[in-house]
Amino acid sequence: MAELEAATSKVIRSGCYLHGPETKAFEEELAAMCGADYAIGVSNGLDALRLILRGYMELGKLHKGDAVMVAANTFIATVIPITEFGLIPVFVEPDPLTMNFNWEEALGILKDNDSSQSPLNIRCAMITHLYGTPCWNRKAADEMHGRGMMIVEDNAQALGAEAAEEGFNGVRFTGNLADAAAVSFYPTKNVGALGDAGAVITNEADLAAVVKALANYGTDKRYHNLYVGYNCRIDEIQAAMLRVKLRYIKNENIHRQKIAELYASKITNPLVEVPAIFPDMVQVWHQYVVRVPENLRDDIRDFLADGDIPTDIHYPTPPYCQPCYASIYHPEEDTVAIKLANSCISLPIANMTAEKVSEVSNIINRFRS
Amino acid sequence: MAELEAATSKVIRSGCYLHGPETKAFEEELAAMCGADYAIGVSNGLDALRLILRGYMELGKLHKGDAVMVAANTFIATVIPITEFGLIPVFVEPDPLTMNFNWEEALGILKDNDSSQSPLNIRCAMITHLYGTPCWNRKAADEMHGRGMMIVEDNAQALGAEAAEEGFNGVRFTGNLADAAAVSFYPTKNVGALGDAGAVITNEADLAAVVKALANYGTDKRYHNLYVGYNCRIDEIQAAMLRVKLRYIKNENIHRQKIAELYASKITNPLVEVPAIFPDMVQVWHQYVVRVPENLRDDIRDFLADGDIPTDIHYPTPPYCQPCYASIYHPEEDTVAIKLANSCISLPIANMTAEKVSEVSNIINRFRS
Repeated sequence: MAELEAATSKVIRSGCYLHGPETKAFEEELAAMCGADYAIGVSNGLDALRLILRGYMELGKLHKGDAVMVAANTFIATVIPITEFGLIPVFVEPDPLTMNFNWEEALGILKDNDSSQSPLNIRCAMITHLYGTPCWNRKAADEMHGRGMMIVEDNAQALGAEAAEEGFNGVRFTGNLADAAAVSFYPTKNVGALGDAGAVITNEADLAAVVKALANYGTDKRYHNLYVGYNCRIDEIQAAMLRVKLRYIKNENIHRQKIAELYASKITNPLVEVPAIFPDMVQVWHQYVVRVPENLRDDIRDFLADGDIPTDIHYPTPPYCQPCYASIYHPEEDTVAIKLANSCISLPIANMTAEKVSEVSNIINRFRS
Repeated sequence: MAELEAATSKVIRSGCYLHGPETKAFEEELAAMCGADYAIGVSNGLDALRLILRGYMELGKLHKGDAVMVAANTFIATVIPITEFGLIPVFVEPDPLTMNFNWEEALGILKDNDSSQSPLNIRCAMITHLYGTPCWNRKAADEMHGRGMMIVEDNAQALGAEAAEEGFNGVRFTGNLADAAAVSFYPTKNVGALGDAGAVITNEADLAAVVKALANYGTDKRYHNLYVGYNCRIDEIQAAMLRVKLRYIKNENIHRQKIAELYASKITNPLVEVPAIFPDMVQVWHQYVVRVPENLRDDIRDFLADGDIPTDIHYPTPPYCQPCYASIYHPEEDTVAIKLANSCISLPIANMTAEKVSEVSNIINRFRS
């Protein structure tokens, strides 16, 4: 807290509030942490995704009417930029074990599309490392790249996570697995700003340049508008606070891993399925999401609330069931995403202690249908 | 400075960084200051304009392909939302005296359009109170309203300014003259945040509701996406700092008025035309823009720079001459906006003293061609 206050006071006194030294240093430190060539601080995670897609469109790599694969159970921010730019979302159901984008199903969709009478031009896959669990399949990603597709990571929830090593060339960090990645620093994130902030991470120099321009009204130099851009800048004050927070990300993630392991060992109620811990990857547990029978979900949440345990649902409604998308997509049955939405409960994971985990687990273990 | 640091420390310790009590209080104080029913804190001035136009589209008051009048010499942020949403910009040349949107010319365009073979559906006028000078003509605005048009104020540069009284019903403040207004709190503004921030001001309850939803992913309630929205929230920390700054806006504006009057009395070089001071309105002098012969502009700037006087150009290139709009518009001759762009110089106006004004004026008075 004192460190954060000192960092903000320094910025306030500096008189430089945008595009200054804190942003520059933050971008360098974030890129270095992920082993990437470029990190561009931006206004928030949704804008980071918007800037990546708009960037690819300006570079001629994506065109209006192209299709983009996206996880059916992601937060709606992953889908918004697709439809905003006149691209067509192709929803990929999650793998029930990882709760992430199902790569095998995605490859199946691509093959079906090949032999379709009116194939979509599927040019991109947006994968979400949901809840902090890396979503990565090197072989499937290679096949997509072989088709000339781009892969964009929604790394809003998984900064510091590491994918399984098998088949890798040393790169493990989410945010630097695919072609470009968006990061969110929403305050509740493992690395949270004190307000909204985000970043784009990439190794592509041309994408980095266009994202940087688009985020500043489309200017490549002052008052010279190469693109019709946006204002998606990160504040110096947020960059300064994130530089403080980045120093603690490793400890924060390790702490959450311990809490997740503790939950897994303590929760023994057979009605409750705890999330899988994958020994070959590093999960960072932005959320700790258990699954319960759909018809008991509300009862279990009430039971926990009676014991003063706050819970949440991430997310109650898949994007394709939201009213804003009612006109473009109608799932015809109970999809995997809908079933997950109806059966998931997020248990407390931030600022937890071993004692508190025992308390939550004891309450949940006492629940009977 | 101490007040700002105290305000940020309070927010940092509160643990609430978005959609909290500072934002609520800031919105109430800003609305009260302009005598308006609603103020919605948002991410920046461009986003405020984007949210107003998207809001009118969601409300069915504007449709893709409709035309929007806009000042030809405004900052590009006024034009970006028009083209972003598939609306057609109709550029209105500035009045050389006010340097603002020329209302008479706008009415002429409307009449010409009425009798055109292929008339545009001109549904909206976006007026900019450029440099802090109110852009208002009650009779012309009434005529536009009579045509069912909406009028949107780009009040990025004129918070606290007051329009001429003639024909008014008591409302004078820019930001509350027309149907909706966008405010920017970019750090250099008369009321500057310590980073990016903005606001939408309106008396229309339906527009306020849709803007609020669009700025938060399109949600009317948590995890319920009525619209395909954006993330355009204001940070609590910026709202807190703006609440401090708002307390000083009146003094800041009065100080700038004195500086402007001083410049006008001190600058006597016949090569330099000082900006008009209009006795029947309150100008807030976000910029102090003089005009000089085009062929001497660079020499005069160099002469001032040699005397350690920094100057700037607002703006060197009208939006319709920017490369990003090369494909949609080609001015066929030297327009009023182009001539202004080539002849204007912004003299220092922020943090000025009487002594400093004399110094700048003395240097400029010594210039000879």
